[in-house]
Formats: sequence, structure tokens, C-alpha cells
Amino acid sequence: MSELRRDPVLGRWVIISSERADRPRDFRSSPEVKNSGGFCPFCAGNEYTTPPEVLALRPDGSRPNGPGWSLRVVPNKFPALSSEGNRKRTGDLLFQSMQGTGAHEVIIETPDHKGTLVSLDLPAVVDTLSAFASRIRDFRNDTSLEYVAVFKNHGSAAGATLEHSHSQLIALPVVPTQILAELEGSLAYHGTTGRCIYCDIVAEEIRREERIVALNDHFLALCPYASAFPFEAWILPREHSSRFEEAAEAFPALAPILQHLPRSMGTVLGDPDYNLVIHTSPLHSRRLAHYHWHIGVVPKLNNVAGFEWGSAFTINPTPPEEAALHLRNALTVK
Amino acid sequence: MSELRRDPVLGRWVIISSERADRPRDFRSSPEVKNSGGFCPFCAGNEYTTPPEVLALRPDGSRPNGPGWSLRVVPNKFPALSSEGNRKRTGDLLFQSMQGTGAHEVIIETPDHKGTLVSLDLPAVVDTLSAFASRIRDFRNDTSLEYVAVFKNHGSAAGATLEHSHSQLIALPVVPTQILAELEGSLAYHGTTGRCIYCDIVAEEIRREERIVALNDHFLALCPYASAFPFEAWILPREHSSRFEEAAEAFPALAPILQHLPRSMGTVLGDPDYNLVIHTSPLHSRRLAHYHWHIGVVPKLNNVAGFEWGSAFTINPTPPEEAALHLRNALTVK
Repeated sequence: MSELRRDPVLGRWVIISSERADRPRDFRSSPEVKNSGGFCPFCAGNEYTTPPEVLALRPDGSRPNGPGWSLRVVPNKFPALSSEGNRKRTGDLLFQSMQGTGAHEVIIETPDHKGTLVSLDLPAVVDTLSAFASRIRDFRNDTSLEYVAVFKNHGSAAGATLEHSHSQLIALPVVPTQILAELEGSLAYHGTTGRCIYCDIVAEEIRREERIVALNDHFLALCPYASAFPFEAWILPREHSSRFEEAAEAFPALAPILQHLPRSMGTVLGDPDYNLVIHTSPLHSRRLAHYHWHIGVVPKLNNVAGFEWGSAFTINPTPPEEAALHLRNALTVK
Repeated sequence: MSELRRDPVLGRWVIISSERADRPRDFRSSPEVKNSGGFCPFCAGNEYTTPPEVLALRPDGSRPNGPGWSLRVVPNKFPALSSEGNRKRTGDLLFQSMQGTGAHEVIIETPDHKGTLVSLDLPAVVDTLSAFASRIRDFRNDTSLEYVAVFKNHGSAAGATLEHSHSQLIALPVVPTQILAELEGSLAYHGTTGRCIYCDIVAEEIRREERIVALNDHFLALCPYASAFPFEAWILPREHSSRFEEAAEAFPALAPILQHLPRSMGTVLGDPDYNLVIHTSPLHSRRLAHYHWHIGVVPKLNNVAGFEWGSAFTINPTPPEEAALHLRNALTVK
């Protein structure tokens, strides 16, 4: 059983997950992507090696947990959090903990071992987004959960341990600090102005143009003004919307913008590993006038060094205007 | 001229430092440690290749900027911040910036290219700590600066680009978010209890024993209760003290504890790269009853993956009790 522990000074929760621990000697090098050319538990025909699926798209009407699927969601075999246990906080003012209850699932986006977010056809990208939304909506039935973090680690430098294209979700009994900070900051802005700060950013960035990467009728991709990392990019819906999981009708417009980012990063940066994270409202909040869901994508380029880690102060050597220029032109200029 | 920009939602400042930028194609791989076996600007005899020293220990009374020193502090040749420009904030509610004014210096801890924090003799470690403190005190004369971040990146995975042992400091016109969060959290605890939370942590950890790595009359090294990273460790003074730079008389007791951490990590983890960061009060705050300076050390073991980056929620596979046990026993058990 893993455990959630609260940092007594910062109020931040961490998952202490000893089931996922390697022995100390195994920490000496970075994780390598496994199964390159070997056995892959995510490939069609190997469904028996994963826990039973919780969602699958089976256009041929095939049976669960066998071949025939185009997308499959399964519990993580080595979950950081599990559904057992209770969610009571224990401890004193200094040392608070909770049992590590929640869920940890894997979204296998394609049966094709060589498929990637960039190579999938657009309907398959829409299916992936719809699967994310469907799973989040499902967790809203569990009142003891507070947030579902959906993310994709592409490549070993980004934390992936399996090569076959997949995303993950972790359903948590607390709201992550980063999301709380976004909720607080956007609420303060709303209190001052009566407006959603993300709506204002969208309008202002479209007016200024220089940080835009891609734009269509419904979505904007940009390199944010105070980018903490080189080539960091966000995707935001142009219309106000506080919940990703209620935006399914817009996913056909989101899919090409979403594909644009890793594709253009591939051209400019040479197929970098990257992290992709969906930022959405807490599970049980009402629709929020001040919060606006968005997706963050960060390529793994340089290591985060001491200054960044210790002070939460980052040095970004690439101005977002320059990054946006490269990414915007990557797919049109030879 | 680099620029500080404020994240409009989070209030966090980042340094956009295009002078330090590589061309996009240079981002494709991690930085490598240079000069292994080649020319080293930090070695004795090569003083002419660095900017003129701002501090040096010269036991032989030798002249500035030539050989004969045992420790040398020089401005960074590629500074993230520089002393020119003004500190006025410009911009609107969404896009605030400041010119990138401040300072960025390098503390060269030994003239010996092969020396490390672990191999230095204890007086040299005390000299290094004293140089940090001296530089911070010096920056207190500049009322436009708010904080001095002192840190050490050991090894290329930790962000070092030169092999020769050195630390860095960045003097900033704003207080880093991480320090603000510590100040706020500790102030709230002080408001509730009338006590310093770090003093309470020291007392409670000494009582519980299980997370202690090393202990002497003046300092405690421990793996913190809610460790975000495997083998993360803190060093705290046992007596309340809000400023590292005023603790010089305790540095002879700090030096062996400071050396213990990378030395024991070396034994347990196979000489990992690591980051070391000093957390101290803002430059111009008075002595604080609620804040307690400390040093954080984190070995670079696994990559930070998407979940951590996007949600500020970390999964740590090594319970701190297990890490502390390994580090505590590393130097006594064969």
C-alpha cells in the first residue's frame, strides 16, 4: 500500500510508493525504455498480460481482453495508487498522511507498436481525447476522489518505461498543488477584473501574434509569455470552458492542434522526448467562471539544474517568441 | 540583456536569458560536462580566462587573478543576470517584466581539478561555506536585490557544464516562489503554535530517529517526512537561526555533516550527480522567528516524469525511512 504524505511547511502532498521501488543499486542510472524489439504487453495479442480493461474501443465487436481493439484503457500493473484503503487523514500537525487510495490507469492509444501521437490518424487522436474525458467523468462518481491528472510521457527522458505509445491517468484524493495555484491565481484575477485570465490571455495573444504556434476556430497553441522551459507550449480553447471532460464536441478541432505540437517540435528539435499534461477543474467543483482548462506540452531538452529545483526559479534560455516562430514555421517552411 | 517575466496566473518569475541560448539544433541532447582532460578555465594558472575575481583566499599573499589561491569567486562569464539596467517593473496585469538585473557568480572551491566536496579537507569546506556567507552579506548592501540563491550542481545530470568543482550564486531582484512558499507555510504554523516549524521538525525527528542520516551537537541531516525525491536530504541547524549568512561560527560543525551527504550517497548510490541548495531568509527581512535556514541535497536518480512536472505532485518510490537507513549506515557498515 502506498501512502500520501503532506509536506508540513508547503502543504504539498507526495505519493510515497514503495511498491514501485527498485533496490538502491538500481537508481544509479536513468530508466531505459524497455521492450524495444522484445515482448510488449501493450501490443495486440498480449492483452492477457495486463489487468482487465476498463474501457476499450472495439469497432469489430470483438470480446474484451482479446485482440480487435483500436484503443484500450487498463489499470496500471504497478499502480502508484490503488482503490483499496480509506481516505482518512491521520497524524499530527507535522506529519499528516493518507493511505494511497485512488486509481492509476494506462490509455493504450493504438494496437500498433510503432504508432505515436504524431502518426495516428485524426480520428484515433479524437478517440484518445474522448477516452481521457470518459474516464474522468467516470471518476466523478467517486466522491472521495478530488482530481484526475491525465498525462503522457513520450520517451525515456520524459519518464516513459514502455515504448508502445500510451498515456496515463492518476485519480487522486487531493487536488495537486499546481492546480490549486492555478485556481487561486485565476480566482484573484477574476476578483480584480471580473474576467477569466485565460480568456484574456487568449485574446491578447491572438492580438499580439508573436507567441502563437497554431490557431483554428476553436483552439490556440502558444508559447506562454513566462515560459519556464525552452519550447514549452500550451493549448487553450478559445471559448471559456472550465472542464476538459465536458468539451468532447470540440475534440475534432483539438486533435490537429494537439498533433501540431509534437510534430513541429520533431522538425525543429529532432524528435525530442516530451511531457503532455491536461489541466482541468477538480472533479467536484461546479463550473468555474475563473478557471479555463488547457494542455501543457514540454519537450525534455536540458536537464533541470540546481537553481530551478531549489528555488522554483527557472532560467529559460529560449524566449517564447523565438520558440513560437520556430514551431509555427516548422511545418510550412522547408 | 536578459529579462525577468512574471507568470500571470502563478505569480512566479522566470529568467528569460537569450544570451545563454544555444541554437535550436543544440537542444537535441543534454549538456555534456566539458573540459574533461581539456582546457579548464577554473584551474590554477588559467585565471586570465575568467572575469576578475570578487573574492579569493590567498594564504600565500599572492596577487589577485593569478595562481596561489585556495578558493576563488568570479562573476559567471555567461551570466543569467547582470548588474546593469534598472529594476522597474513594466507591463500590464497580464505581461509584467523587469530587466534581468542582479548578479551571477561562480565559487571555485579548490584549484585542484580533481577535487570534490567529498575529497576537500574540512577547513576547505568551511572556507567554501564562509565564502557563500560573505558574498550574501555583501549583497545586503544593494537594496534593489531581494534574495541570493546559492547552489551547487554536481555532474552533468545535475546541470553542471564544467567538471571542475564549483558552486554558483544568483542574486535576484525578487524572492523565489519556493522561498515565499516556505516563508508563508512557516508563518502560518507560527501563527497557530507560536513556534518555528523547523525547530519542531528537528526536535521530533531526533525523537523518532528513523529519518536521521547524521547528527552532531549543532546540525541534523535527515530525509524529510514528505520527501519528493528518492534520497532527498536536508541539513538543519539544531538551534533556531533564520539566516545562513550569519551562522559562520557554526560552519566547522556544519562541514562534516555537509560532506557526509554526498559521501554516503556515493557509497549507496554509486557517486550520483546531485543538486545542493541553501534556503535562507530574504536579504532585507529582519531576523525571523518562524523561518529557519537549511540546506537541501537531492541526488539525480530518476527523471522527473510528466505527472510530477504537470501537477507539482510527485511520486517517490523510496520511503525516506529506507533512504535514511541506507545513508546512515553507508559510512560505518562495509
